[in-house]
Amino acid sequence: MKINIFLFDDFETLDVFGPVEIFGKTKEFELDYFSVNGGFIKSAQGTKILTKDYREIDILSKNVLLIPGGMGTRTLINDENIIKIIKQLSSKSTFTLTVCTGSALLAKTGLLDNKIATSNKKAWEWVISVNQNVKWQKNARWCDDGKFYTSSGVSAGIDMSLGFISDILGYEKAKMIANMIEYIWNEDKQNDPFAIK
Amino acid sequence: MKINIFLFDDFETLDVFGPVEIFGKTKEFELDYFSVNGGFIKSAQGTKILTKDYREIDILSKNVLLIPGGMGTRTLINDENIIKIIKQLSSKSTFTLTVCTGSALLAKTGLLDNKIATSNKKAWEWVISVNQNVKWQKNARWCDDGKFYTSSGVSAGIDMSLGFISDILGYEKAKMIANMIEYIWNEDKQNDPFAIK
Repeated sequence: MKINIFLFDDFETLDVFGPVEIFGKTKEFELDYFSVNGGFIKSAQGTKILTKDYREIDILSKNVLLIPGGMGTRTLINDENIIKIIKQLSSKSTFTLTVCTGSALLAKTGLLDNKIATSNKKAWEWVISVNQNVKWQKNARWCDDGKFYTSSGVSAGIDMSLGFISDILGYEKAKMIANMIEYIWNEDKQNDPFAIK
Repeated sequence: MKINIFLFDDFETLDVFGPVEIFGKTKEFELDYFSVNGGFIKSAQGTKILTKDYREIDILSKNVLLIPGGMGTRTLINDENIIKIIKQLSSKSTFTLTVCTGSALLAKTGLLDNKIATSNKKAWEWVISVNQNVKWQKNARWCDDGKFYTSSGVSAGIDMSLGFISDILGYEKAKMIANMIEYIWNEDKQNDPFAIK
């Protein structure tokens, strides 16, 4: 299955490359990078990634849409065109995964209404203000509700990606990847050590 | 201070972008990417990064050399030209940091002789066979000896980068970055949960 990563300027580097490391360890997933107009996109930490135009995404095949967070989301949230594109891509996805404040963009589309979801605990008040019809979970490391997976801040995207692989390909596979990359996996999605008490 | 990341094909994605996330959160460090001939370099997980020719590295200024690991190291270890370049760059660096099997490349130069160092526990026998004059530490999450910092596999590069920042800029700064990216920092460099028992 293709994992289509939707990038924008000032995305958070590890929001993308944590999951890329995890999915890149499987033969079942293939990674590709997209943006609104294609071309180079620069992360908040200055990493430049070459992307394709989002219209090249094969929405007729089974696919996973991955939306990172980062400072870029703060302006994109008011960009009706981007929100429309995300709504369209997510509607056609088999699964949509968001990391960090990527869930704010997804919430803005309305697709998370009445679903459980989470986000970065450092940006919590801002994220929940975007859409109060979402059942925001403040203690979750990550959430899944139907086809939507949402994680807490940055590093939590690695835990969620392993959780997603566990759900799709089995726990053993996820555990094997965590061991392979010597990653201390926080397996319990309901336990976020960075949750606001 | 510049962090000069030395890339080669089939480097491990998170070996680079874990540290990039950490150093990208500081104002004290500036990141840049280099390779033997410049141009695009592709990670083992298919991420393409644009690099400059290593001869553009400013070796007269204070600088940090960062060498990732990955499957690419298995062939590079026998490439005399690359080892010579790494030796030259590391000799001129203020600090040299390696992640995962990046320490095998550094060990091959002889610069780690009689120093404590570590590496990926999944590739342990291969790494230590490269140079037995290194004081290899099988239980360490990361090691530092003088200007050389070496970490265990993949994710351990994040722990080491935070440890390096703690040593250079203070513990509070490192802890703040870990919290900012909601990362569960394994602070104890002598405790690697993936160590071979």
